[in-house]
Amino acid sequence: MTSGNHDESGPGTASTGDDPQGLDAQWLESAIQGAERQARDGAPPFFAVVVLNGQAVGAAGNTVVLNNDPTAHAEIMAIREACREISRTRLTGATLFASAEPCALCLVAAAFAGIERIVYALDADGAADAGFDYRAGQALLGSGIHECLRLEHLPLPDSIRPFTSSRSR
Amino acid sequence: MTSGNHDESGPGTASTGDDPQGLDAQWLESAIQGAERQARDGAPPFFAVVVLNGQAVGAAGNTVVLNNDPTAHAEIMAIREACREISRTRLTGATLFASAEPCALCLVAAAFAGIERIVYALDADGAADAGFDYRAGQALLGSGIHECLRLEHLPLPDSIRPFTSSRSR
Repeated sequence: MTSGNHDESGPGTASTGDDPQGLDAQWLESAIQGAERQARDGAPPFFAVVVLNGQAVGAAGNTVVLNNDPTAHAEIMAIREACREISRTRLTGATLFASAEPCALCLVAAAFAGIERIVYALDADGAADAGFDYRAGQALLGSGIHECLRLEHLPLPDSIRPFTSSRSR
Repeated sequence: MTSGNHDESGPGTASTGDDPQGLDAQWLESAIQGAERQARDGAPPFFAVVVLNGQAVGAAGNTVVLNNDPTAHAEIMAIREACREISRTRLTGATLFASAEPCALCLVAAAFAGIERIVYALDADGAADAGFDYRAGQALLGSGIHECLRLEHLPLPDSIRPFTSSRSR
């Protein structure tokens, strides 16, 4: 699987009280770097990394158009890769790091996979401003999703970069 | 892809005012037959068929355990196969026939894929009675899903058969 590349994060990485070492920001930066690679390749600028017990066990970008697969969102592909990697159908205790706020489909898939926490960089409003508006789909969800998952917005200085450099808009 | 087997439906197939030729029941019977094959193989007794312009373009069973993939529900696998088959990312105008009521993940995936109508045989309560209770997941959804999809329950005499013969409970 793709390396998380989290050693490449430089000084100045954000850290919070809940994450004194800034590990969340480092994993999230690796997702943003993945999204940038997607953008450079003309693919949708979305990328996700699944981290379990401090290790990246899945990392993938959106391949919807590449594979003619409407379910091949970055988060779902990363979940599928992670489950293959650990030979299980559940990712209990894992955190999903996503370059942008997950859509309704990915939130439900994450909940079904037992993901406990999702950290994302750019929010859906920011993605919409950059030409990728998937907010209408959120109306499919009820409030129950927030009882299954902790959803945390961690904006980083680089959050918007994959979107502004994207050629797939 | 797997044939729809819809010519095998015998006399006595249910028909309704909306479906005078009983085609819905025939496609649904083919999904039930697929679920029975799953059950015979010790796999989860769920199967789905995607029909577009009167043709089965995708047909698949649940392979969650077989492939360590928590997203490999029958409906999602059938949608993925259908999109590959027609080389598109959307199934606009298609109907999904499912041996049992789709779970929350499959409903959202179907909506994202542009499926317009889902017809299912056994409802979630019936599946729960047979040992497969996925009703809690429905709480993840809001009412918006019903604005995207027409969801029709068409119980057939054979609806419960894959579940009672299942070895995977």
